[in-house]
Amino acid sequence: MRNNVLADVLELIFDISLKTRILKEWQSSNAARKPKYSGKQILILELADNYDSLTEKELGIIFGMATSSVNDLVEKLVHAGLIEKHRNENGDSREKLIKLTEEGADELSEIKKFGSKRYEYLVSRFQESELEGFIDYLKLVDESVGSSMRSIIFQQY
Amino acid sequence: MRNNVLADVLELIFDISLKTRILKEWQSSNAARKPKYSGKQILILELADNYDSLTEKELGIIFGMATSSVNDLVEKLVHAGLIEKHRNENGDSREKLIKLTEEGADELSEIKKFGSKRYEYLVSRFQESELEGFIDYLKLVDESVGSSMRSIIFQQY
Repeated sequence: MRNNVLADVLELIFDISLKTRILKEWQSSNAARKPKYSGKQILILELADNYDSLTEKELGIIFGMATSSVNDLVEKLVHAGLIEKHRNENGDSREKLIKLTEEGADELSEIKKFGSKRYEYLVSRFQESELEGFIDYLKLVDESVGSSMRSIIFQQY
Repeated sequence: MRNNVLADVLELIFDISLKTRILKEWQSSNAARKPKYSGKQILILELADNYDSLTEKELGIIFGMATSSVNDLVEKLVHAGLIEKHRNENGDSREKLIKLTEEGADELSEIKKFGSKRYEYLVSRFQESELEGFIDYLKLVDESVGSSMRSIIFQQY
């Protein structure tokens, strides 16, 4: 039984994700202006916000990129004042830790506030009471994804 | 009130989408083998499955691509036997309609079945009863996204 419900849920999620990607393709190819930061740069800010010990080596593993390419992405964010590189006191001293600055935290919060409006189409058919019921499930999804994300990061060690 | 709940729901969705994108980056850079079809090709199959009157011109608008690049993507799918181009009986006879073949429908269904397993991390913290409650909300999301997708396609005319 669980397998049937699970399979139904997953296929529905996949269907939604395909339609969402179609809408995103359309949104980005019809956007009035280019976004300020690339998708990967925003992900770096999100990762730095979630982990105290993020390094360029880890970013390379996550993105499947050479350290030099990761370094380019990171340096642009350092230059914009959004992240800083700190000495790793508890580990390899050659590996710098990537930390969000206060400005970076504000910018990430702006990106989320502004960017989240693009997701209105996901709930356009919801009544208010349905939104309230939905939020509890979303919190559970957020926990599920967060725990998978952490286990991927930590398995690198 | 509605605005607060809506804003909370949208920010939570944005948070989930960032974490999901991080996991996807990791999955694709650590994948044992390259997927058989590109992301855009799968989206073309999904679009053909949803619309009776899909044309290359529309695909160009959705993807923000030149007709020649769209033509390359489409020809590969025609060559693989997944789609066919039909004469448009009700419109511009120069514009061919893109239709999913039976083989294409089977392949899309396989892609969904196989691909949806990758989404298990989204519901790893769910109990079975919670999955059952969640499915009704997902159906509402699917309807919401489907209606936005259709309105984008139809506004091209």
